[in-house]
Amino acid sequence: MKESWSAFDTFEPHFRPLVVIELAKGTKEETKEWLTQRIVDKKKNGGAQLLVKPLVKENGGKIDGNQNIYLVGASHLRLLLGAETVGLVKECNDSSMRTFTYSSRNTFKDFAEDNHDFLTMAERQYIIKHELENLRARDEKMIPGYPQAKLYPGKSIIRRLLTNGILVQIFPLHDSEKLKKLRYAWYGQMKISYQPLDEIRCYFGETVALYFGFLEYFTFALVPMALIGIPYYVFAWEDYDKYVMFASFNLLWSTVILEVWKRYCATMTYRWGTLLMKRQFEEPRPGFHGVLGINPVTGKEEPVYSSIKRQIRIYLVSLPFVCLCLYFSLNVMMIYFELETWALDFHEENESCFSNLMLFVPSIIYAIVIEMMNRAYRYAAEFLTSWENHRLESSYQNHLILKVLVFNFLNCFASLFYIAFVLFDMKLLRQSLATLLITSQILNQFVEALLPYWLQKRRHKKVKKRMYSLKMDTDLSLFEQVNLEKEMGTYICLGEDHKKDCCKICQEFRPRTIKERAAAEDSSYGTFDDYLELFLLFGYVSLFSCVYPLAAVFAVLNNITEMYSDALKMCRVFKRPFSELTANIGVWQLAFETMSVISVVTNCALIGLSPQVNALFSESKTDLILIVVLVEHILLALKFVMAFVIPDKPQDIQLKLARLEFESLEALKQQEYPSCLSSTEKLWERQFSPVGTLSSQPIYRKVSFSRR
Amino acid sequence: MKESWSAFDTFEPHFRPLVVIELAKGTKEETKEWLTQRIVDKKKNGGAQLLVKPLVKENGGKIDGNQNIYLVGASHLRLLLGAETVGLVKECNDSSMRTFTYSSRNTFKDFAEDNHDFLTMAERQYIIKHELENLRARDEKMIPGYPQAKLYPGKSIIRRLLTNGILVQIFPLHDSEKLKKLRYAWYGQMKISYQPLDEIRCYFGETVALYFGFLEYFTFALVPMALIGIPYYVFAWEDYDKYVMFASFNLLWSTVILEVWKRYCATMTYRWGTLLMKRQFEEPRPGFHGVLGINPVTGKEEPVYSSIKRQIRIYLVSLPFVCLCLYFSLNVMMIYFELETWALDFHEENESCFSNLMLFVPSIIYAIVIEMMNRAYRYAAEFLTSWENHRLESSYQNHLILKVLVFNFLNCFASLFYIAFVLFDMKLLRQSLATLLITSQILNQFVEALLPYWLQKRRHKKVKKRMYSLKMDTDLSLFEQVNLEKEMGTYICLGEDHKKDCCKICQEFRPRTIKERAAAEDSSYGTFDDYLELFLLFGYVSLFSCVYPLAAVFAVLNNITEMYSDALKMCRVFKRPFSELTANIGVWQLAFETMSVISVVTNCALIGLSPQVNALFSESKTDLILIVVLVEHILLALKFVMAFVIPDKPQDIQLKLARLEFESLEALKQQEYPSCLSSTEKLWERQFSPVGTLSSQPIYRKVSFSRR
Repeated sequence: MKESWSAFDTFEPHFRPLVVIELAKGTKEETKEWLTQRIVDKKKNGGAQLLVKPLVKENGGKIDGNQNIYLVGASHLRLLLGAETVGLVKECNDSSMRTFTYSSRNTFKDFAEDNHDFLTMAERQYIIKHELENLRARDEKMIPGYPQAKLYPGKSIIRRLLTNGILVQIFPLHDSEKLKKLRYAWYGQMKISYQPLDEIRCYFGETVALYFGFLEYFTFALVPMALIGIPYYVFAWEDYDKYVMFASFNLLWSTVILEVWKRYCATMTYRWGTLLMKRQFEEPRPGFHGVLGINPVTGKEEPVYSSIKRQIRIYLVSLPFVCLCLYFSLNVMMIYFELETWALDFHEENESCFSNLMLFVPSIIYAIVIEMMNRAYRYAAEFLTSWENHRLESSYQNHLILKVLVFNFLNCFASLFYIAFVLFDMKLLRQSLATLLITSQILNQFVEALLPYWLQKRRHKKVKKRMYSLKMDTDLSLFEQVNLEKEMGTYICLGEDHKKDCCKICQEFRPRTIKERAAAEDSSYGTFDDYLELFLLFGYVSLFSCVYPLAAVFAVLNNITEMYSDALKMCRVFKRPFSELTANIGVWQLAFETMSVISVVTNCALIGLSPQVNALFSESKTDLILIVVLVEHILLALKFVMAFVIPDKPQDIQLKLARLEFESLEALKQQEYPSCLSSTEKLWERQFSPVGTLSSQPIYRKVSFSRR
Repeated sequence: MKESWSAFDTFEPHFRPLVVIELAKGTKEETKEWLTQRIVDKKKNGGAQLLVKPLVKENGGKIDGNQNIYLVGASHLRLLLGAETVGLVKECNDSSMRTFTYSSRNTFKDFAEDNHDFLTMAERQYIIKHELENLRARDEKMIPGYPQAKLYPGKSIIRRLLTNGILVQIFPLHDSEKLKKLRYAWYGQMKISYQPLDEIRCYFGETVALYFGFLEYFTFALVPMALIGIPYYVFAWEDYDKYVMFASFNLLWSTVILEVWKRYCATMTYRWGTLLMKRQFEEPRPGFHGVLGINPVTGKEEPVYSSIKRQIRIYLVSLPFVCLCLYFSLNVMMIYFELETWALDFHEENESCFSNLMLFVPSIIYAIVIEMMNRAYRYAAEFLTSWENHRLESSYQNHLILKVLVFNFLNCFASLFYIAFVLFDMKLLRQSLATLLITSQILNQFVEALLPYWLQKRRHKKVKKRMYSLKMDTDLSLFEQVNLEKEMGTYICLGEDHKKDCCKICQEFRPRTIKERAAAEDSSYGTFDDYLELFLLFGYVSLFSCVYPLAAVFAVLNNITEMYSDALKMCRVFKRPFSELTANIGVWQLAFETMSVISVVTNCALIGLSPQVNALFSESKTDLILIVVLVEHILLALKFVMAFVIPDKPQDIQLKLARLEFESLEALKQQEYPSCLSSTEKLWERQFSPVGTLSSQPIYRKVSFSRR
């Protein structure tokens, strides 16, 4: 009898595995027992009250299986109570969005006691993750069997297991039926259509859906630029002065699309309920370490780490390192220019078709080197930021994003800036821009989706075949499915900054440092990389839009293929990610807005440099510069005014939010008064008790009043 | 027996009048009775449960008095319960700030059942105002005796009385003892010291204290500029190139002081409790009118007004009017320049001491005209914005502030911009700047404090004499005091934008349109005007700081006198204002920041124009401009980075806020679980009831598991 099951299996005959817990090989039996007991234990005993079952494969009486893998599920009732705990927001029968509570469950749309699909699978998995994460040590001083894994009251057990390497990973299971349907709706049909964002959200959660929503929106938003760009490219190749109109349009357009995105995003996240979710208290990130001390906020014992030490690490190690990397990147750029000159010389010496092709080679090599450097730097930045030992996930993320953005920006665009404003070579600029843009797009598509897909396919060819043939053979296939999925790469849904506005941290189940990453032997990849890619694309499109109007066209094409390859990636290559509740794209909004401000400066400068415009002001260069500067300032002012004037949320969402706020205030008043009545009713009465008998008489009566 | 008193006088022998209600002369007896009854009625009957008493003067048996004036007070207990209702935040014994609740009253600092000073007088008056304002119609269809004054359920009675002119005003009473002490601490001693901000806050409330806090902070912040400015002025009169350093310092300094102000402000308002106060739902402003409809947010009946009509009024009437005013102001400016030329000609023709003086006359006249235009425009803007019929006070305020700021900015600074960037006459710029600055300062001090003070003194000479002699003669003096105070001007504490963050609207007790204002026959004046004055002063100091380093010196001197004259104004000239709870200076922060961004542009341009800098770049003007533009961009970027990097709240306040937030989340959880237990305890149990008996056994047991 090697199989185990929760004590309560008799009452949940339809145990549906939702989440997989993989322990390290050779984990002590004692630890396993303790952990599973804690998971199934009652809430009042400090347990999570979930169902757990080891993964087994029964093979004609012979049992073989990986005893280190457990499946976690929960009863329907437990999930509903959990939904109340995490504060899920669902749609009501009157089509308003409200925080779910078990007592008001019947007012919610599609709720029925036997409707197990009331909560989406992503939500159920999210609830289980939340409950597991909040499984806290009570009086245990250490993980049983592992004296080095210290615990203190209130410490999350799962986090400790993770940081000590006893727990390898936790991940949610795919649902092959639903995934098939989603795949068909998403990219199965051979027609261009909107993405099924609501279905994506149901399956993968809000962060992933929001990314695809942004990708789709961004693509549509680029279409006008692309459409206007084509005739500019075709009919007026060298006419910079006509580009003035085009560039001005682009600049204002980019502001408009970023503002409108906020509104569109608010509409979506309102529908998904995440716009209304309350912020929860942020806990230290799992990688954080320090000596045990008192947290000044909670008053509880937890590791503390001196802020001065962290500052020293940031300013004396990380900052110099980043500067060094930037310097290195600039040196690589100079080598590229030498290669460029060499190629040009070669072309001039022996003019041929081959030499003509050779002209593009340096740019292509440089584009590949840039990609490689970006990726290498990414690892280094993660290692460094992890080493800086930030207490909060959000602070870790902010430092990481800042490091990565600055480097990627310089690495990708430094050569273009150099060509434009030092060499003043517009032809080379256009050529470099085109090569960089196209090469990096092709590389990205290849490295991020096709390559892993191919590797994946080869690795699991056999297992996959069986998986495809699964129909009713649920238990057998489950074993295969789990073993297949646990080897897949991890896609990390980053809630970025919005973590502040919404819910808990998912990233803790992610192998963090390079060492851990190497241990997990998978390719870590997530929304961060996807947004970064779009960010750089936006840079290529907007920074130098007046010299290369075709950039938007390529961006649109790239986005369309990106949509499909990302969809493929999500469905086929990576583990299913835990759903992450987010209300907006967080720090990326700021990054895109900053880019659009920088693009105003570069475009105005480029127009000022163009020979046609210079010809117009041949008598006075000063006037030209003054006019360019004036136009730049006006555009910048316009951008700020527009950002200020366009409301961040559409009227109807504002109205709905106001209504909810009003209701909650009213409810608070209602709650206040009855509670007042119960506790202070006597007070209200006492104050007037002596005249209580007068209440039938006119309360206001005239009495003699004289100075006492 | 003409005196009246609340029915409950026997139980509050120490009735302390806090607030005065003045009804219109000839108000019907029926209405008075109804109103007083509603005020004293019990909470459960929809009353305010306050104490009320008509103002009478007993003169040796003969009673004479104004039967239209009522004094409102409340019992100590009632005030404590009211403090809970409005959500006051007070200091606890453990020196943390918490929302006051009656049940937890003993944990608060200085609380004792018989300590009637636990709530400051300003807080008590605020509570009474709040309760009066929330006295709402139940089933009345109209104000008794006034069929034209319609009521509907939920309509604030006081607002309706105000808009129908039955209620003339409501104002809080001064406390002569405390006022005397405050006056002494504030400006009674002949030594320079910090202002007693906490005492000001206790007496006048947060908004007034915050204004004086800002004034003081601003003065101190200007001192370094002034100190550096003096040697620049004395030793290097025409050395523009040396001013580069000075101007750069000023620009960065102004960013720093505005950021640090936020931190300082957070520290203060945390101490005062307003930083923690919850936002309340905003009601339509009293002047708002429309046909009765359904509010989409509350679902209740209230007047609605078409947004399109409002837009039409804004864009087709207000906007053209503002443009016309701006055009007019520019024309006045051109007339000033003609006068200036004429004066110069006159001086050149007959060079004399008189003609030398005459040189300053146009500037002085212009400064006076500017002041007059600003004031006239202020009335027009108020009238127009009122006519636009905004539903919310905050939206009214925003439109008013935008109108006034744009006009005042142009009116005050257009001539300086014209001199600097059209005439390029730096000497005239310096002279104009000095004249405008000094004249407007003198005018302001005179018009805002000394003149009303003198008028006030003359008008009430007799009454005042008696008031000074008041000692124990409380009741007699009360009659005099009320009659004296009701004639005083109204100082309007504007919570500006922060209304959103904190509490209710006080401004409704303010006569709004010109007609109403004329009816009230007083000079309406408030924080708006005080901030506006500082804003313009900041403009004079920062916009052209590199040509006139002495501006900061004058600003410091002005601020010191301003502090004293404003203090005099608050204590002597105006009615005591209702306390207003604010957490920051709201929209003025934005206005000051915008000014400091504009000043970067103007200062860089001025430096670029200076002959010394031009001499440095004599060979290439283009280089000069490019460098100036580059420096400008770097400064702007630096400003934004600084604004981003400097946290808005000091570390310790952040920590305290985090602690409070953590506590409230914990409390919510605690509340959730017990409430869960009471309501859903059975559910948690039911889910596991069959194994309830197993709880003594190991919960995790191994059972055979086979595929069913």
